[in-house]
Order: sequence, then structure tokens, then C-alpha cells
Amino acid sequence: MKALIVSGDQFEDTELLVPWYRLLEENIEVDIASAQVGVITGKHGYTVTAGFSLEALVPDYYDLLILPGGKAPAQLRELEPLLEIVRHFFAKEKIVAAICHGPQILVSADVLTGRKATCYQGVAEELKDAGAEYQDAEVVVDNNLITSRIPSDLPAFCREMMKQWWELERE
Amino acid sequence: MKALIVSGDQFEDTELLVPWYRLLEENIEVDIASAQVGVITGKHGYTVTAGFSLEALVPDYYDLLILPGGKAPAQLRELEPLLEIVRHFFAKEKIVAAICHGPQILVSADVLTGRKATCYQGVAEELKDAGAEYQDAEVVVDNNLITSRIPSDLPAFCREMMKQWWELERE
Repeated sequence: MKALIVSGDQFEDTELLVPWYRLLEENIEVDIASAQVGVITGKHGYTVTAGFSLEALVPDYYDLLILPGGKAPAQLRELEPLLEIVRHFFAKEKIVAAICHGPQILVSADVLTGRKATCYQGVAEELKDAGAEYQDAEVVVDNNLITSRIPSDLPAFCREMMKQWWELERE
Repeated sequence: MKALIVSGDQFEDTELLVPWYRLLEENIEVDIASAQVGVITGKHGYTVTAGFSLEALVPDYYDLLILPGGKAPAQLRELEPLLEIVRHFFAKEKIVAAICHGPQILVSADVLTGRKATCYQGVAEELKDAGAEYQDAEVVVDNNLITSRIPSDLPAFCREMMKQWWELERE
């Protein structure tokens, strides 16, 4: 089993680093992908190396997709290869965990109709317009979909992410 | 059971936030203390509220002490109330987890004689001078003492911290 984080420059630093480190703590293999291979820099200056480009990714290899927030999703949502990856995860009912502005990518992939979800306050209207049932809670779980609002929701976000991971691992 | 994080302005943001969020994920109660009560700001701009001053702390209430790095420890190590708290933790063999520049506080508290430990590379010499058996590893565990070097060691640091916490909880 393997996890995938997709982000880009101006990511919200803790929203990438905290779930990543959480998975590494459990010795889980995690790949980081972006539009291109290379170093991406967060809003607060942390840097992370994206080892995969979106075009080169094989989504079948992954069981969990993490979409951190920040300003990266506004760029990433325009990239058709990423929207295809997201649709793959939803079609296969794999775990998708998106936080803050991350759910913008789900809006663009058009996968939220009838799904319970949350996001950063400023994204709520477009989430509703995309057909989601928006809830203002630290974490919202709707089957394989886990969403949160802000960095301080990360403990709840990671709790639900790990719960689903372990359930999957037991299957 | 309860955990305590002691830091101050210019803390290394992830070294405070990642262990804090990790404990909150487990619904563990965590207090944050600093020289004074109030907001402290990390090197990367994240802010955290210290709800306790060092002078007002009752160390008996706590089972785990976390000392994040950054530039905060250079100031904190001068504060006798903190050194007394650290000596309490060592005397009672409670869990102490220090990372990066955090072990500078242990040097000043004079609790490292004969103990295996690690720290940020630039702190290694004074660690050795304080009598520690320095090791260059992502995490070094010597009974109740857990130490790491840098932010990317956080997964290993948290792994050992949680392991000791759960052992203690089972007792």
C-alpha cells in the first residue's frame, strides 16, 4: 500500500508536512507529485521535493490521495492529468483526504455531487455550487472522502486518514 | 496523563506543531508553556498561544516534556524555572523529547552526563562537553530520553515519543 501527495508552490506548509510525516511515522511509502518534478516551496518557506510529475503518475499504484491547501490548488485544478487522477480515486473508491483549498481540485474534477464535505471558508460557496453537502466541522467523512477546513483541523484530519488507512490494510 | 511543550518566539515551527498535533490526534491533553503567557511566533511565522508561564507550572501534572528547536532554546536555557522543571522530569524518569536546538536546554540543566543523545549538528560539541554520548542518528532513545536532530527526523521522533507514551499508559 502506498500514499500520494499532490501539491505545488505556495502549498500550506503544515497541511503537506503534517500528514506526510504522519504516514512516514508508520513507515508507509509516500510519493509526492506536482506539475513538474522538482522542489516546491510552501507559503511559509518550507521546501519539499516532488519526485513525480502528474503526467508520469500511475494512479493504480496508490491507495490514498492527499490534497493539501494553500495557493497551490488554484493552479493545480487547471491540470487535466490531475483531474483524471482524482476521478480514478473516486471511481475506485480509494481514500481521498483534502484540506483547506485542496477541495478546489475536487470541485474542478466534478466528483462532489451529493457528497458531504468541508473546506476553507472562502471555498464553501463553490463547494456547494459543485453539489456538495457542505458542513462546517473540523473533519467531515463521507465514505472514502475525508475533508477539513484549516491547519488547526490537522489532528482530526490525520486521525480519520489513519483510521481509513488501517481499515484498508486489514481488508 | 498530560503532556507539556515548552518553547518561545523563533521556535522551529514544525518541531512544535508536528508533535503537538500528533498528541492531539490521540486526544491527549497538551499544555504549552513559555517564559510568559501569550502568543509565540515561529521562525516561519506560525503562531501558538502559550497558556502557561514557566513560573506558574506544576511539573507534577505532566508525564511528557517536549522541547522543540529553533532559536527559542537559546533564550529558554537561561531560565532557572525551566531548568528546575527539566531536572524534575529527569529525577522522576518521565519522558523528555527534545529536538534540534531543544537539547541545549538539557545541557544547561546539566542532566546529560552519560546519556546517549543527539541534537542539531551545531549543538553537538556542547552536548559532548556536557557529558552526553552523542550519536548522529534520526532519533536516539536512552530510557526516558528521546532526542532528534532536524525537522525531517520528526517522523522517527514522534514514533518513539508515542511508543513511550503508550507504554506508560499501559502501566
